[in-house]
Amino acid sequence: MITSTHNPKLKLVRALQGRAKERREAGAFVVDGVRLIEEAAVSNWGFRFALYDEALSERGMSQVEGLRSQGVDVEEVSTLLMKSLSETETPQGILAVLEFAQLPIPESPNFLLIPDKIRDPGNLGTLLRSAAAAGVQAVLLPPETTDAFSPKVLRSGMGAHFHLPIRSMSWDEIDQLVNLAGIQVLLADMDGQPCWQTDLRQPVALIIGSEAKGASDSARKLAKAKITIPMNTNIESLNAGAAGSVLMFEVVRQRSNL
Amino acid sequence: MITSTHNPKLKLVRALQGRAKERREAGAFVVDGVRLIEEAAVSNWGFRFALYDEALSERGMSQVEGLRSQGVDVEEVSTLLMKSLSETETPQGILAVLEFAQLPIPESPNFLLIPDKIRDPGNLGTLLRSAAAAGVQAVLLPPETTDAFSPKVLRSGMGAHFHLPIRSMSWDEIDQLVNLAGIQVLLADMDGQPCWQTDLRQPVALIIGSEAKGASDSARKLAKAKITIPMNTNIESLNAGAAGSVLMFEVVRQRSNL
Repeated sequence: MITSTHNPKLKLVRALQGRAKERREAGAFVVDGVRLIEEAAVSNWGFRFALYDEALSERGMSQVEGLRSQGVDVEEVSTLLMKSLSETETPQGILAVLEFAQLPIPESPNFLLIPDKIRDPGNLGTLLRSAAAAGVQAVLLPPETTDAFSPKVLRSGMGAHFHLPIRSMSWDEIDQLVNLAGIQVLLADMDGQPCWQTDLRQPVALIIGSEAKGASDSARKLAKAKITIPMNTNIESLNAGAAGSVLMFEVVRQRSNL
Repeated sequence: MITSTHNPKLKLVRALQGRAKERREAGAFVVDGVRLIEEAAVSNWGFRFALYDEALSERGMSQVEGLRSQGVDVEEVSTLLMKSLSETETPQGILAVLEFAQLPIPESPNFLLIPDKIRDPGNLGTLLRSAAAAGVQAVLLPPETTDAFSPKVLRSGMGAHFHLPIRSMSWDEIDQLVNLAGIQVLLADMDGQPCWQTDLRQPVALIIGSEAKGASDSARKLAKAKITIPMNTNIESLNAGAAGSVLMFEVVRQRSNL
């Protein structure tokens, strides 16, 4: 059982819970809780190791057994140390360090999401979760959007990270990718064409901007057109996660011919 | 200038930032920041008083002048005390205590939202914001949903509270209201009819359940049918705020005849 706060595994976990730079350098990230770890396991995601403490539920303990039988290095940690690692109010007593992996982007994608300047981790997680549910084929993250592999984004993503290709890219790289694929880029904005009157059956990359600041100049340059969710005049805008979800499922609806 | 932490206005603010019971007993709630206070002011909402400190921006100071000219009691507080009151990471230096007011529900409503067992304040705020934007005529809050007038819900509601009738009700009262109005109640659920194939042009009350626990028994009893947002099989569900937004704007779309 790990009882020292200087243990190298604990040090790595703490580093990975911090800045995106640490995760990039280590090529790994941390997930917390039975549910996310289950999602990672059923997706055959690469585990570096897992840690648990005695507070873990029965369901969690059988997960520990399952991971061990798959050859994952699982160690017990003292409850005090686990508490110090956990970022949630009600820690579940299990976390895992996972390898970064790049899920493949289809060669001719027809449905991309570009969350622009989304700083709130909960909003980005919601967008990723809706994107996975709507069948988005890849999420491209421009430089000013928060890191997708921080603990909070992983939590609100609810497993989307294990099904959805997610790439951090410069605007130039994004430009190149959408041009190569011949995809029309649409920017969600207040004064665009109503989304219901826009043909979304052709290949599309949706840019969802930050609600506070609006879209960046790079996004405006890249976008061929602007689309809008028609709404009541007394409300300025929707939450970015909500707006993105409405638009992504409008794409799904139009493509279902309904 | 208020410099004592025992000042009765400060005590009231602290109480109102806490439990729903305090807000009910005082018949008031607190909003924080220039933007929300502006929304309240342009909606002619009843102010009990406002507090600011010298850190307030120029835009905020002209707001203080505006409130004073409307007869609102506005007092300066020491910066230290204001910091202790503010719940946000970047306090704007102004807050106000507002009167509870019940915006009227139309006599024959045709679009209601019932957030069921939504415990997360950010999710409830997102739902209220989308509801106001989608033209929902009233939001009915059953007992197990978090209070709509807590500081966090107000912040993520972004002013929806000043445009949207919001009522805390027992399930019996909700039952009575929807029956009197002859509204069909639809429950958002994983195994319902696809929302795009459901006629949402007739009067409708949408129940959006908590993502973690699903809908309550009372909700299931009240609902005449279940509707679903069709989604990829590898994702279990959407965030409640996202799901509710998709469904509310599907109502708007169908009613726009698009």
